[in-house]
Amino acid sequence: MTTTQQETHHQAVVLQHKGLITLEEKPIPVLSDPHYVRLQIKKTGICGSDVHYYKTGAIGDFVLKAPMVLGHESSGVVVEVGRAVTMVKVGDRVAIEPGVPSRYSDETKAGRYNLCPHMAFAATPPYDGTLVKYYLAPEDFLVKLPDHVSLEEGALVEPLSVGVHAAKLAEVRYGQRALVFGAGPVGLLTGAVAAAFGAKDVVFVDVHAIKLKLSTKFGGTHAVDASRIVGEDNLVAEIERVLGGEQPEVVFDCSGAEPCVRAGIKACKAGGTYVQVGVGKDDVTVPLTAIGTKELRVQGTFRYAFGDYRDAVRLISDGDVDVKPLITHHFKFEDAPKAYDFNMNFPSEVIKTIIDGPE
Amino acid sequence: MTTTQQETHHQAVVLQHKGLITLEEKPIPVLSDPHYVRLQIKKTGICGSDVHYYKTGAIGDFVLKAPMVLGHESSGVVVEVGRAVTMVKVGDRVAIEPGVPSRYSDETKAGRYNLCPHMAFAATPPYDGTLVKYYLAPEDFLVKLPDHVSLEEGALVEPLSVGVHAAKLAEVRYGQRALVFGAGPVGLLTGAVAAAFGAKDVVFVDVHAIKLKLSTKFGGTHAVDASRIVGEDNLVAEIERVLGGEQPEVVFDCSGAEPCVRAGIKACKAGGTYVQVGVGKDDVTVPLTAIGTKELRVQGTFRYAFGDYRDAVRLISDGDVDVKPLITHHFKFEDAPKAYDFNMNFPSEVIKTIIDGPE
Amino acid sequence: MTTTQQETHHQAVVLQHKGLITLEEKPIPVLSDPHYVRLQIKKTGICGSDVHYYKTGAIGDFVLKAPMVLGHESSGVVVEVGRAVTMVKVGDRVAIEPGVPSRYSDETKAGRYNLCPHMAFAATPPYDGTLVKYYLAPEDFLVKLPDHVSLEEGALVEPLSVGVHAAKLAEVRYGQRALVFGAGPVGLLTGAVAAAFGAKDVVFVDVHAIKLKLSTKFGGTHAVDASRIVGEDNLVAEIERVLGGEQPEVVFDCSGAEPCVRAGIKACKAGGTYVQVGVGKDDVTVPLTAIGTKELRVQGTFRYAFGDYRDAVRLISDGDVDVKPLITHHFKFEDAPKAYDFNMNFPSEVIKTIIDGPE
Amino acid sequence: MTTTQQETHHQAVVLQHKGLITLEEKPIPVLSDPHYVRLQIKKTGICGSDVHYYKTGAIGDFVLKAPMVLGHESSGVVVEVGRAVTMVKVGDRVAIEPGVPSRYSDETKAGRYNLCPHMAFAATPPYDGTLVKYYLAPEDFLVKLPDHVSLEEGALVEPLSVGVHAAKLAEVRYGQRALVFGAGPVGLLTGAVAAAFGAKDVVFVDVHAIKLKLSTKFGGTHAVDASRIVGEDNLVAEIERVLGGEQPEVVFDCSGAEPCVRAGIKACKAGGTYVQVGVGKDDVTVPLTAIGTKELRVQGTFRYAFGDYRDAVRLISDGDVDVKPLITHHFKFEDAPKAYDFNMNFPSEVIKTIIDGPE
Repeated sequence: MTTTQQETHHQAVVLQHKGLITLEEKPIPVLSDPHYVRLQIKKTGICGSDVHYYKTGAIGDFVLKAPMVLGHESSGVVVEVGRAVTMVKVGDRVAIEPGVPSRYSDETKAGRYNLCPHMAFAATPPYDGTLVKYYLAPEDFLVKLPDHVSLEEGALVEPLSVGVHAAKLAEVRYGQRALVFGAGPVGLLTGAVAAAFGAKDVVFVDVHAIKLKLSTKFGGTHAVDASRIVGEDNLVAEIERVLGGEQPEVVFDCSGAEPCVRAGIKACKAGGTYVQVGVGKDDVTVPLTAIGTKELRVQGTFRYAFGDYRDAVRLISDGDVDVKPLITHHFKFEDAPKAYDFNMNFPSEVIKTIIDGPE
Repeated sequence: MTTTQQETHHQAVVLQHKGLITLEEKPIPVLSDPHYVRLQIKKTGICGSDVHYYKTGAIGDFVLKAPMVLGHESSGVVVEVGRAVTMVKVGDRVAIEPGVPSRYSDETKAGRYNLCPHMAFAATPPYDGTLVKYYLAPEDFLVKLPDHVSLEEGALVEPLSVGVHAAKLAEVRYGQRALVFGAGPVGLLTGAVAAAFGAKDVVFVDVHAIKLKLSTKFGGTHAVDASRIVGEDNLVAEIERVLGGEQPEVVFDCSGAEPCVRAGIKACKAGGTYVQVGVGKDDVTVPLTAIGTKELRVQGTFRYAFGDYRDAVRLISDGDVDVKPLITHHFKFEDAPKAYDFNMNFPSEVIKTIIDGPE
Repeated sequence: MTTTQQETHHQAVVLQHKGLITLEEKPIPVLSDPHYVRLQIKKTGICGSDVHYYKTGAIGDFVLKAPMVLGHESSGVVVEVGRAVTMVKVGDRVAIEPGVPSRYSDETKAGRYNLCPHMAFAATPPYDGTLVKYYLAPEDFLVKLPDHVSLEEGALVEPLSVGVHAAKLAEVRYGQRALVFGAGPVGLLTGAVAAAFGAKDVVFVDVHAIKLKLSTKFGGTHAVDASRIVGEDNLVAEIERVLGGEQPEVVFDCSGAEPCVRAGIKACKAGGTYVQVGVGKDDVTVPLTAIGTKELRVQGTFRYAFGDYRDAVRLISDGDVDVKPLITHHFKFEDAPKAYDFNMNFPSEVIKTIIDGPE
Repeated sequence: MTTTQQETHHQAVVLQHKGLITLEEKPIPVLSDPHYVRLQIKKTGICGSDVHYYKTGAIGDFVLKAPMVLGHESSGVVVEVGRAVTMVKVGDRVAIEPGVPSRYSDETKAGRYNLCPHMAFAATPPYDGTLVKYYLAPEDFLVKLPDHVSLEEGALVEPLSVGVHAAKLAEVRYGQRALVFGAGPVGLLTGAVAAAFGAKDVVFVDVHAIKLKLSTKFGGTHAVDASRIVGEDNLVAEIERVLGGEQPEVVFDCSGAEPCVRAGIKACKAGGTYVQVGVGKDDVTVPLTAIGTKELRVQGTFRYAFGDYRDAVRLISDGDVDVKPLITHHFKFEDAPKAYDFNMNFPSEVIKTIIDGPE
């Protein structure tokens, strides 16, 4: 499991600039920090954000200015540990939390390291991602996978943690009604977490019948096909109808689409919580008066923070969320550039693509 | 102080329909509920919402369909008590909470009676308001005024309670920076409450220099004249500048105006709270991505709930908020129709008008 | 289902004084409050508190000074409704919340009606209980039972609600370890609710092997037989051992026994929550320094409040908690005095006794 | 301000073993961690815990096994900074947070670093304290003192932070009634913080009239001399009497004495919060049933966590708490052993002793 003396370079999947992904030989990073470990990457999911950088070279304020290794949804095996490491050992199979904050920032010490302005996040410019053979990470940003959890499932801990974080911020409680807009990977996983946290009715709204069908495997109790409904008020009415005349106490928008945001705020019960998970246009026109008169809490959510990765592994491990139905495609590490092309060109066919390896 | 035997009718200030307010003789209501008291109204503030009904006949879903007595910011004196009343006695000077919820609703029992769908709120169609001589109210929606608090101050407990409720929802804590858009009565009072609750920097933003000047009496430590700044990003930059490069943890929009909403969300510190107090257009275009990446809490607030009126009286009583500088004009009860005209026609001259009486 | 004209009196199970329970004929109460309904009582559980009054004539400050009807864990059928009733209708099968607070108290309006000092609680002196044929209750303190939930299960909603309330105050979250002392009805139900709310390890501690065996039906993942362990530190060590060296984040003491209280506080993880559910001696010697250095939250819990009854019915209805294994004995209404004797004399044989009827 | 080349050793105040404190020459520590700074210690308060180690050689599980430098309430001046330091600079006058947690522990990342099991806390075995000339600390555990705040006040930030942390855990809100047992330094400061956070009645209970007199400078609105009252119920009655028949919503026990703990729990309003700040005997007999029936929250509190030091400096800086009246005695660094003797031998004469220097 340890590196042979001879290995000095490995292959990396590099976004050279907008529109060009290549395999590139790079030096293997050397372990120096006593609290870090060296991981051999095993499985990596392709995320919409990777594709977005490929297409446009930027996400919001994060702009690609130099070639960057892609990948941040990864699992791997520990192959070398720093001298202070106590939490994992060589041979452990782990899910890798891809963002490491400053240990000195206010946000980190206040328990919200996801908001740390010094966060180094894999495959977010200027930080390289995980699509390499060997990757360095601090011991406390790894979660060991139980034997019965596969490395493939381990790669999906990342998007699942987004759902865990959103559901925690939503403070989902036993017996609540939840509404989820967008049945892509994050929407499905968020709904599944809400169900695992006690939500009793989970309504999914999407425009793709195939995704709605899949939602029944992710806690969905009701599905609303928005492609058949004209106008946000009719959509709100349909949601209320499937809920037997009741309104959801918790709404997750995992689409970022204005009609969903609007319908979500309108559908939410007075005193309820609306969580913005999806990212779309920067500016969206919302029914602001409804937020006031219903005294809603509109909660932003950003990535995940302490405990979320661990809870995500537990959800998989205990069978409370089954992430496997998300995986629709596999590519070998060597074919990673093709995998990105495929994801970019056939968005409606793909739920989640896994890149295997490298060997 | 008690009613003479002969009194059977009293004068009421009635909004007959959009654009017409008259004095009208009405029967004095008879006390029947054992937990209610009869109050003689002494002082009533004019609220922007009254003027809005006068101008347009409606606020959102509340539409004037029949003549309605105006007024909901009132203080008075208890002149008769129901047989079960124990909380107040004849002669007590009180601030009157103008909205009474159902005692049987979920919302009331959950501790959020302001969201009760069966709320009967004074001067909100179809419920009559307080601009009469005698008014009935339940004993537990009255707060006794200490001797050194005037009935005029008692009338301002209502808008002050809006600020109290907003500041509680904001969870203002010692040492925080607060930003307030809109230096009208509610904005000024909300900022003053935030200061009383521990906010250490309170930045007011408005376009009227005269209101900004007044803000120093309401906890304001910094004032930003938005009329001199072009563009929301420049406004955000100016706010950060007056705060010495820091960002506010708590933002209150008391304007309802889109540029303020947008600047407020942009100015708010990551992990912070933005409270929507003001009501403007139903639909507002907001920087939604910023809510997500900064993981903001955008909190709606609606009127006030249990404890807010009591805290508002305490704030006045202990000198933590001085409401008197708000009062710019007085009218006699008989001149109430003129008072509304004046408020409608000279909005920039008026902060708060008090109607005295009736005698 | 309605009362025949002739019925004017019904039988009641009356605790005449300490040590004497008799059946007594009493006038049927007449429905007068428009928000109340008349219920025909169907099933009633015997609670430890009833037995305590029987034995000693008092619980804490509540002292029996006059004969009192017993019973507060009841389900029934609506047979008559007041003119304002909208929430239930004649024929509905319901669980009956036995305590009705004042609608005017601070506590009720603050969302904590269980703390209302004016609470009228069935079978708590001086208020009569539910062991009669006809009982009056307000419409909003009834929860309708779905068709597939039996009236017997409906009677157990009361103790289940105690568990619901405790688990809510504990803020049980997904993946936590919970520790429960006392595997009597309330302990078992509290553990079951904790599991339903997401606790992943639920350790029950008791001295009766038979109760510990039953605990596996109530979410129990580990059982510790305290009768075999000498000394609280050894008990704490054993708890940590069954948890694989970890400590519980949430502890419920449902025993009220000093050794359990002490072991519970010592076993609780730093930063965790200890909930005192059981009631024993007034004064208990606790390891106070441990509360400080571990910064524990020691939370008292009292009965249940808004929403708890509803959640309890949902837990049963959805199969998240199966209350039926609790029921070990049945008695007819006519034999209620014998039922109390049995419960008093054979406490180790009884988990829960149900009184059927009256017919 | 920088060290001259020649300095290689400095004096330290060392607790050699129970009962013996000496001055000892020790090597000056060398700055190596890039995020650390070297401080010249200027003022140090003597804490009861230091005296306790002097007297008994142990506090709870912390046992002195080797000589240890004393002191943890210190302020100083930055004389050298590590190469990564950005938060302070040479010459800055700072309050020094004396406990540094692991950056890798769950507790730290969850926002509760005070509970980190790997905490290295000054003058808690086996960690040396601050009573030396030069002391190393990480840049993010220092809070800069404004020019108008003295180094002496800076030394008192430590005990003030204990009060800040306790008041935050208590969630003190505007208008509440607070009750404080024990008018020593921590009690006085905790009461003062509660007042600064909005408590409107602050009742101090102590047995020393002189301390109670001082309490008026620390937010005290009422003082109860417990030396004149026999029995905890009479003490509770007297507290309620001075509060005009009301009960405190928040209680802080800063004494650790059983009669105070008991009276505090009994005096606390239903639904209220009792915070255990003081440490006395490990085992205390408490009225446990009262915690249950009043549904109290009994909250342990341990030192302070993120933000507390900063808030403490703000409280001093803004004049919200004046710590200076606490200081009753001064000793030179060279006389530190005498200072501890004095504190041990004349506990009733001393509130707070400051050790100046070393020069």
